[in-house]
Amino acid sequence: MPKITRLEKLLYRLQSQHACLNWVFGEIKDKPGIVFELGLGLGRTFHHLRTHLPEREIHVFERQVHSYPDCTPQPHELVIGDLAETLPAMAARHAGEVCLVNSDVGSFDKAHNKVMAAVVSAGIGPALAPGAFVLSDLALDIAGCAALGLPPGAQAERYYLYKRTGS
Amino acid sequence: MPKITRLEKLLYRLQSQHACLNWVFGEIKDKPGIVFELGLGLGRTFHHLRTHLPEREIHVFERQVHSYPDCTPQPHELVIGDLAETLPAMAARHAGEVCLVNSDVGSFDKAHNKVMAAVVSAGIGPALAPGAFVLSDLALDIAGCAALGLPPGAQAERYYLYKRTGS
Repeated sequence: MPKITRLEKLLYRLQSQHACLNWVFGEIKDKPGIVFELGLGLGRTFHHLRTHLPEREIHVFERQVHSYPDCTPQPHELVIGDLAETLPAMAARHAGEVCLVNSDVGSFDKAHNKVMAAVVSAGIGPALAPGAFVLSDLALDIAGCAALGLPPGAQAERYYLYKRTGS
Repeated sequence: MPKITRLEKLLYRLQSQHACLNWVFGEIKDKPGIVFELGLGLGRTFHHLRTHLPEREIHVFERQVHSYPDCTPQPHELVIGDLAETLPAMAARHAGEVCLVNSDVGSFDKAHNKVMAAVVSAGIGPALAPGAFVLSDLALDIAGCAALGLPPGAQAERYYLYKRTGS
């Protein structure tokens, strides 16, 4: 068989993201906490989060909004700016309040991805409640978090799942 | 369960497209003919077509190229312009030579989709060889073509499959 194609990279990432999200919705069902979504893009994942978590406070981080009209967060849900600045600021403001982060800030640019993985890894820690989950399209290295195995339907290295350890 | 989300619409369309493409690669394996790809986008599907059909002549129709560098067709493979003009012209030039069309020109804009489905339905016919296959993200109505059931892994109404009947 030919090597994995660009189409398959996207397909397998989406399948894995979808499986991880649906798994984590069950995990946080009875837990308090707010949600951070890093990267809005066209807003499809925000639409999925909002549909499944209708009552949760969600903060969506993006440089510039260009989402579909029906996938666009309310103004008070948006944190506009460079993640290297907005993430540490919001993590301090919501220290220990976040039960779920979905980070989808990678692109086809490997150098950019390395920078973004470092920005997220360094910035997100203080926001996380004990037992919080971090889902990511990029491999992260967050102090105080452990990597988890993926739920059925997700493929290794297409999406990543972390949990804040300790109390 | 909540209604289908934007994320799921994309995921199910990609799963269905992927299943249809991989099925049709087997169907055309021993048949001659060239390939039309309508809509390049970021080029992921072109990358999939080129990987699985390394020897085929492929013509890719797009208004403006903004694909990933490693997913961009060679200049001689590109047909740049408005599909309402380029498709009839290329269908006349390659009358009866095309064994596979992948049409992926829909968007979130329903009015636009209606226009595009009409443009493709009206324009593609003369290009099709007997037994040619047309895959599409939009429902089409092509004279001389019949709708086929989808292969395993594809979901009804997420992708569409047609075959040129007669001889």
